[in-house]
Amino acid sequence: MEHSVLGHTRWTFSAGWIPAQSTGREPEYTSRNVLCVLNTSSGDACVRVTVYHEDRDPISPYEILVPASRVRHVRINDLIDPEAVPLGRPYGLVLISDAPIVAQLVYVDTRKNNLAVAMISGVPDVGRRSS
Amino acid sequence: MEHSVLGHTRWTFSAGWIPAQSTGREPEYTSRNVLCVLNTSSGDACVRVTVYHEDRDPISPYEILVPASRVRHVRINDLIDPEAVPLGRPYGLVLISDAPIVAQLVYVDTRKNNLAVAMISGVPDVGRRSS
Amino acid sequence: MEHSVLGHTRWTFSAGWIPAQSTGREPEYTSRNVLCVLNTSSGDACVRVTVYHEDRDPISPYEILVPASRVRHVRINDLIDPEAVPLGRPYGLVLISDAPIVAQLVYVDTRKNNLAVAMISGVPDVGRRSS
Amino acid sequence: MEHSVLGHTRWTFSAGWIPAQSTGREPEYTSRNVLCVLNTSSGDACVRVTVYHEDRDPISPYEILVPASRVRHVRINDLIDPEAVPLGRPYGLVLISDAPIVAQLVYVDTRKNNLAVAMISGVPDVGRRSS
Repeated sequence: MEHSVLGHTRWTFSAGWIPAQSTGREPEYTSRNVLCVLNTSSGDACVRVTVYHEDRDPISPYEILVPASRVRHVRINDLIDPEAVPLGRPYGLVLISDAPIVAQLVYVDTRKNNLAVAMISGVPDVGRRSS
Repeated sequence: MEHSVLGHTRWTFSAGWIPAQSTGREPEYTSRNVLCVLNTSSGDACVRVTVYHEDRDPISPYEILVPASRVRHVRINDLIDPEAVPLGRPYGLVLISDAPIVAQLVYVDTRKNNLAVAMISGVPDVGRRSS
Repeated sequence: MEHSVLGHTRWTFSAGWIPAQSTGREPEYTSRNVLCVLNTSSGDACVRVTVYHEDRDPISPYEILVPASRVRHVRINDLIDPEAVPLGRPYGLVLISDAPIVAQLVYVDTRKNNLAVAMISGVPDVGRRSS
Repeated sequence: MEHSVLGHTRWTFSAGWIPAQSTGREPEYTSRNVLCVLNTSSGDACVRVTVYHEDRDPISPYEILVPASRVRHVRINDLIDPEAVPLGRPYGLVLISDAPIVAQLVYVDTRKNNLAVAMISGVPDVGRRSS
């Protein structure tokens, strides 16, 4: 019960970029971005994702279902409906969920035959702001 | 005294994932996730951790005691009671503490015989929200 | 419409530092810092950036235009007006935008012939604070 | 003028840990933690740092002066007064400043002859909280 309100319903990322090359066997060493969503609420969360680009209109909705009391890690590389997210191009994400969630992003880069990993939290929307 | 309210009592992470392989001698180069908790208050903090999975119910409580005015770094790999956290699988964390704490997570990956390190802050629960 | 207020108008970073050496072909493997700005609003955002230094007065404004509903990734290395940001020196950033944005920074380091990547969110200014 | 209130006066980190080994020439490739502080205000900031340990009382104050309108990057490895911060041991940080600042931490690890870099923001204290 005390978990039921953890998180926020809207999250934003501006640092999306998926390397177009990889070194090593798939899928373990495929360069990727992984969107990590935790739903601690007692109901399923339907997360509608909008992907922003630098040179064309945003694409939406990508829909991700995160069941109640579950975590889900989705490779952005695997989002193909309504269309694949281009590799090697900047993108941004907005997540709008019908239940509170927590969203973080993991960056994996194997272009150079070493592993580079970075992690970043989304920016939550914490309600009406005064500035 | 002015330190006594630093932090929050509830923290959430969605990006948990521990590599199942390592390269190099243990424990220094073991791939791992390290949960880092700081308790600046004047009383001990009992932190109850719930681990969320992608395909089964969450497991809890893992209990971590952080003494007053101490920091504690706990390898998620070492959490075995009530049960070990599986390697190579997505997980999420909720921390509920009886005293304000600060929680950050460190990711160490030695699968490729190089070191990859990432750090991420937990998402604090900052009380009642308007959205 | 529901996207129109996502983000904040003021963001700050203190961890800026661009490695002065690189290994590998340009521009893909050039060591760099990349400022990633997402504008989800329905109007263009004019972002005025101030660069802080350790030993002299801050330099401003660097102006970055982020069109409505677009993301933009700008290499700090490429900011040359009013003057280039020195490599191998600490710097900080303040962004002030006339529309709400989200700002994150990506660090890429190829000095050692491996890729090191880190990501960090800016610190948003969330309005008047009580402390 | 509009910059004068950017940041917060209290910041906390729980993920401090400095590798005890390094590969490559000093000081460029010395494994380290770098505390990055930006002071955008019009007055100097005196930052008092308390270092928390896992097995003994916190040590303070380490004093860091950040002049008005300046950024300063301080290696934790270089903090020696009142005493050096041990390598290879968990530590936490509390910063209390007499002017608003922004604090981020950079982790550099060269133990494996590759560069691993991670970045993390401090957790700001945003005033009285309801939970």
